[in-house]
Amino acid sequence: MNEYDDNEKQEVAKEEEEEEEENDEKDLSSVHQDETNDQTFKQLNNEETKLQNDLANELKYNLKIPITDEPPNIGPTPYKVAIVGMNELGSATAFLLICRQIVTDVVIIDRNTKRLAAEYADLSTCTTFVSGVNVQASNQLGSCEGARVVILCDVSDDDDDEGQKTSSTTQSSSQNEKILSNFKTISRAISIYASDCVMIVGLQPFEVMTQLCATNSMLPSYRIIAPGTMIDSAHFKLLIGEKLEISPASITGIMIGGHGHNNLPLWNSITVGGIHLLSENSSIGKSYDKENWNQLHINVNQRQEEIIKTKGTEVWSISMASSELVECILRNKREIHTVTVNIKGYYDVKDDLFISIPAIISQNGVSHLITTNFSNHNNENEFSKIIENIQMIIKEKLKNI
Amino acid sequence: MNEYDDNEKQEVAKEEEEEEEENDEKDLSSVHQDETNDQTFKQLNNEETKLQNDLANELKYNLKIPITDEPPNIGPTPYKVAIVGMNELGSATAFLLICRQIVTDVVIIDRNTKRLAAEYADLSTCTTFVSGVNVQASNQLGSCEGARVVILCDVSDDDDDEGQKTSSTTQSSSQNEKILSNFKTISRAISIYASDCVMIVGLQPFEVMTQLCATNSMLPSYRIIAPGTMIDSAHFKLLIGEKLEISPASITGIMIGGHGHNNLPLWNSITVGGIHLLSENSSIGKSYDKENWNQLHINVNQRQEEIIKTKGTEVWSISMASSELVECILRNKREIHTVTVNIKGYYDVKDDLFISIPAIISQNGVSHLITTNFSNHNNENEFSKIIENIQMIIKEKLKNI
Amino acid sequence: MNEYDDNEKQEVAKEEEEEEEENDEKDLSSVHQDETNDQTFKQLNNEETKLQNDLANELKYNLKIPITDEPPNIGPTPYKVAIVGMNELGSATAFLLICRQIVTDVVIIDRNTKRLAAEYADLSTCTTFVSGVNVQASNQLGSCEGARVVILCDVSDDDDDEGQKTSSTTQSSSQNEKILSNFKTISRAISIYASDCVMIVGLQPFEVMTQLCATNSMLPSYRIIAPGTMIDSAHFKLLIGEKLEISPASITGIMIGGHGHNNLPLWNSITVGGIHLLSENSSIGKSYDKENWNQLHINVNQRQEEIIKTKGTEVWSISMASSELVECILRNKREIHTVTVNIKGYYDVKDDLFISIPAIISQNGVSHLITTNFSNHNNENEFSKIIENIQMIIKEKLKNI
Amino acid sequence: MNEYDDNEKQEVAKEEEEEEEENDEKDLSSVHQDETNDQTFKQLNNEETKLQNDLANELKYNLKIPITDEPPNIGPTPYKVAIVGMNELGSATAFLLICRQIVTDVVIIDRNTKRLAAEYADLSTCTTFVSGVNVQASNQLGSCEGARVVILCDVSDDDDDEGQKTSSTTQSSSQNEKILSNFKTISRAISIYASDCVMIVGLQPFEVMTQLCATNSMLPSYRIIAPGTMIDSAHFKLLIGEKLEISPASITGIMIGGHGHNNLPLWNSITVGGIHLLSENSSIGKSYDKENWNQLHINVNQRQEEIIKTKGTEVWSISMASSELVECILRNKREIHTVTVNIKGYYDVKDDLFISIPAIISQNGVSHLITTNFSNHNNENEFSKIIENIQMIIKEKLKNI
Repeated sequence: MNEYDDNEKQEVAKEEEEEEEENDEKDLSSVHQDETNDQTFKQLNNEETKLQNDLANELKYNLKIPITDEPPNIGPTPYKVAIVGMNELGSATAFLLICRQIVTDVVIIDRNTKRLAAEYADLSTCTTFVSGVNVQASNQLGSCEGARVVILCDVSDDDDDEGQKTSSTTQSSSQNEKILSNFKTISRAISIYASDCVMIVGLQPFEVMTQLCATNSMLPSYRIIAPGTMIDSAHFKLLIGEKLEISPASITGIMIGGHGHNNLPLWNSITVGGIHLLSENSSIGKSYDKENWNQLHINVNQRQEEIIKTKGTEVWSISMASSELVECILRNKREIHTVTVNIKGYYDVKDDLFISIPAIISQNGVSHLITTNFSNHNNENEFSKIIENIQMIIKEKLKNI
Repeated sequence: MNEYDDNEKQEVAKEEEEEEEENDEKDLSSVHQDETNDQTFKQLNNEETKLQNDLANELKYNLKIPITDEPPNIGPTPYKVAIVGMNELGSATAFLLICRQIVTDVVIIDRNTKRLAAEYADLSTCTTFVSGVNVQASNQLGSCEGARVVILCDVSDDDDDEGQKTSSTTQSSSQNEKILSNFKTISRAISIYASDCVMIVGLQPFEVMTQLCATNSMLPSYRIIAPGTMIDSAHFKLLIGEKLEISPASITGIMIGGHGHNNLPLWNSITVGGIHLLSENSSIGKSYDKENWNQLHINVNQRQEEIIKTKGTEVWSISMASSELVECILRNKREIHTVTVNIKGYYDVKDDLFISIPAIISQNGVSHLITTNFSNHNNENEFSKIIENIQMIIKEKLKNI
Repeated sequence: MNEYDDNEKQEVAKEEEEEEEENDEKDLSSVHQDETNDQTFKQLNNEETKLQNDLANELKYNLKIPITDEPPNIGPTPYKVAIVGMNELGSATAFLLICRQIVTDVVIIDRNTKRLAAEYADLSTCTTFVSGVNVQASNQLGSCEGARVVILCDVSDDDDDEGQKTSSTTQSSSQNEKILSNFKTISRAISIYASDCVMIVGLQPFEVMTQLCATNSMLPSYRIIAPGTMIDSAHFKLLIGEKLEISPASITGIMIGGHGHNNLPLWNSITVGGIHLLSENSSIGKSYDKENWNQLHINVNQRQEEIIKTKGTEVWSISMASSELVECILRNKREIHTVTVNIKGYYDVKDDLFISIPAIISQNGVSHLITTNFSNHNNENEFSKIIENIQMIIKEKLKNI
Repeated sequence: MNEYDDNEKQEVAKEEEEEEEENDEKDLSSVHQDETNDQTFKQLNNEETKLQNDLANELKYNLKIPITDEPPNIGPTPYKVAIVGMNELGSATAFLLICRQIVTDVVIIDRNTKRLAAEYADLSTCTTFVSGVNVQASNQLGSCEGARVVILCDVSDDDDDEGQKTSSTTQSSSQNEKILSNFKTISRAISIYASDCVMIVGLQPFEVMTQLCATNSMLPSYRIIAPGTMIDSAHFKLLIGEKLEISPASITGIMIGGHGHNNLPLWNSITVGGIHLLSENSSIGKSYDKENWNQLHINVNQRQEEIIKTKGTEVWSISMASSELVECILRNKREIHTVTVNIKGYYDVKDDLFISIPAIISQNGVSHLITTNFSNHNNENEFSKIIENIQMIIKEKLKNI
């Protein structure tokens, strides 16, 4: 399954080094050239290292009698997940995976060692309030190795704290290109170090980033997903619940297409406690609908815009959706979610195109697509139009990359 | 129990208004003068309001047949918690209370309606991934009413986003005084609106802020706590666990005193899976200890400094500790935690003094103090010295207030 | 809301006593005549009592300094639930409520003090593995007082262990009448002691028992429910999931009517990850359906029969469904479940009739019915026929009561 | 690590067959000779099989488009646990593992297919209320293969339902020998099928059964544990909490030795919210202790006796403790628990001897023993005496085996 043997892996690593020398860039993967940094964070603190290695630690060895000489990690690898980029989203995602005890091992990765050290100290402390989760910190992409899921949250290469404030709306176009270029390098590097992982892309626009990842990384495209319209669907259910004064837990209802824009509510998907809503009122979602359900669609997008305008990105919703996906993958759940996936081969799409439709998520990522005819009432080609729009957006965004 | 009848409540509210007029300040509590803002956030969005009130919402009333005309909220109030100040800490705390399903109702309060709206949209969406939690947003302190716990996270009154970056280390002294002054007003207002609540103070330094709260609010001091050395103790257990390669879940060990400084590790408190460590090795924590356990104390404080220097405050650890306390209060758990409490009357302390020692937390806040003699080995008066130091710090900080 | 003042309560209690004297029966409620038993179980063990009351317990009072003289239970009553009857079902339900930490207080009630003591010792020990749950034991129905939910699991009055083996299938008709008669007395007594509770009936047949409860207890019928076809629906979703190789968590689909018999699968209710199944294949559930989905209906009932034949009752499924309902009530969730409810006034039903349809469950029990037209395809009057059948069954069962 | 190659495995299987032919016994492992039964339970139901295999299941293949031809189970084996014996304990343990979502796959094994089918139907239905857990049923011990933990709960070979009532107290000595003999055969067979598993022994007396397992199975003894005095310690903490009116969650305190008898409370292990109790009151546990803490020891054993006398075994406490151990193993937690382990080589014990002391539990079972000097105050040789007693008990019990 790993399509690269060790030789190739070394070559790739070498290529990267050369590239870096040429560009004199300081992206995350270049740090390993710097001998003094070539350490996981746990070893960064000299005091601690010395304590653990040099001093007589007699109590430890007198108190605990080892009973087995077996290597301690025989058997299935524990549930390890790596998070790349300790911006607000990355840090919140790590926090949530710890709190919900979904994983056994979280590796947080950032090239800014100051930021990394602070997040490590804060996050690892939280593990004493739950149980069975370990946090490790590293400034090396190579630490992704063995991770079953890698969540890619930040690719900025600013060394200062400003990197924390990166937002998709406030960047100049040159900044944008820089990000896309970093993203290419980093996602490719991850795919080499963790060739069996499922990659969850946390950067927006999801449709552009997942496609860029598929083009440049070594991962098969079913191993690349983004939360996509899982988030739009969550807003949608919340608003339906508020409209009907019923818990969203008793409501189904999905949106597909592009996250935050070019999305399509599927009115036929709504059930309330098992009651199919369109069967009760066939005018829902139509222009002549007196109850104006279409307003919910507008409100979903207004809410998402509001968040992005003020906070840069939907920190909580995305980390919540990502953690659900991580659980699906680690537990091989076979749940269906509307995530950003490659629909090449369907809906007359000839090339790679990442867009949100329902898909079954299992331990290797997407195992099946649900490719029904997503017509929405009277407007048969609404979904086709959305596909076209998203194709154009991606083309535009990636034209210089 | 409510020491103020309604008359007094109105007077207090009136006083506040007058104060505000004099100062021409725009603190959180003043917003209710502004008629157009006198609304909870759910009503801020005109589109939504119109949808819910004006349009024929036939489906809702045809589908659901009400079976009872009883007021919907008879019986014990659901588990309502209010969080004041949507800075990073406030928002993270709300997020965690939602994810862990500790509460049934979270009210987020911030006077900056833009920030409030964005956090509301992001947080409420997360409730569709769990179940049984409702989020409400308000720009009015009065919305604390009925909350069983109020968590006070931010008192800055900047209208712009910079408020989000408030950090205790980077402020000028005039900024500091402004914060203390806002804190006085706001904590007093909360104590009037939610006279039966337990207040968890999230602002640092905890010892100063809790004391200021006790002096100015109407709450009895057993209803005022801060996470305090719960956090230092968490770091401590983590490091003991790393040193011995044992899960922190099997370790007890506490630190008392001041959070992040003037704190005291109680070596006698450490057990490992039920084994009392000092009984195994009596030199632990002493100057001649060959295993250098004292280094753990140094490391705990280094870690906390690192976080504060880079992140401003320990966002994740504090929200984690606070959420534990919220659960203790709502479920009347009677667990013991090392929280910042008033030790007046003990250890020769004659006046109010807030400092962390173990205390039993139940539904009304602190029900009992654990006031043993916290001597640490040979140094009998170490704890007395810490008390003195903290008294001086508080005096210095509050001298102009 | 409590429809009985204390006078009436006493009268009712008196009536009960008289009844008991006449019948010389030893049902659960009669035990309170016996002075020596008039104690909660915590006091049954003399050793323990003496320990706690008589001996000097200095450590307790020296170690813990009380900080407040407030009554310890001011504020909303903790989440108290009572379970009546410690047969397998009652005990399993208590166990689940503890493990899932849904409640703060569980009161287990049984008149067989030997059985009660054993269950108390076993269940209370489990609370040390979770946190924030207390167990109390009592041989008095009066201990239901203050419970927000009462779950009625066993009404047998055998004093020996055989009571544990009560099963609905193996009883002679005189046994059956005895059970119904006990049920009348006990459910009425509970409704007096806990007049604000929601009662969940765990005894089968649910349709008969809920109706009997409504007729005899003082509770309004919206406060009386049984898990009903929640369980049939659970089997149904599981089998749909197996058929499609998709997690049942991504599937909706409900059955209504009678639990285990006279139940009706609503094919129109099935969605798979948001895809409405009938829209994909309109022949589902019809006679000419080549995929034979009707077989699922047959299999659901076969599975339920198998359990009842071997185990007496569906111990795990019923306790699971009940615990979901308890959570809905305690957290005021407003979720929709297909529970056994009174449909009097709908579907041409003139008198009380308990049958499962979707209903909104909130803190006072059923707040709304979902009374759509449950026609299943071509067979318009299938639901009417089910109503008739269940009416007949109830009439037959209750004719001598 | 698997110490047996396939040849040997076949031989062992052959041996077993021969043994069975000789004895004409019908123990669990013999069932695989019977061709018609050689199936997992999912295939037992003909109706279902036909449905899934023979009929056109078009919807399934039209709705879901497979995206990958990779084998579906690449990567770490999901968290599979097998439970052998569907008596009350086995069934409760399965139920708890499902409810707490600790595992991803539970295999329930019983040779009584009627009982198995009923438990399967009841338990699998519960998985629709949680998510990410699958239940499988089998009447073959071979289905343990691949399980990371096997929990052995019942070895009775009665075909009828009476098997469910097996209790350690009511058996004649010939019954006892039968059980020990079955236990030998079954534990050995499991160790061949699941040579990398950790085996948790649920049958009592734990000290005898674990030792018998170590002698007869192929597993190294660090892979064999029983809950042991984890349960006594749980009672102990509960009673300390009640005595002090503090949550047991804030209390440490362990008992070691034999479960329910010959157990030893370690007074030095008690801390209350971090306060070391013996340092506060050095007379605790001594004969002249005015607070009579020794009474707690007596009460712990009384409680355990009460449960066993009435219920046969501590169904809830044992399943709770076992599920904690399962979580430790699956998540490689390195927590310390007082479980029944082999202490050969320590405390002057020359041969295998299983007894409860604190041990670190990780993914391969016991990784370290905590072998401190368990003297309890003035009575230095109390622990030695307990060791002697237990050695005698085991010798007596196993003399004819």
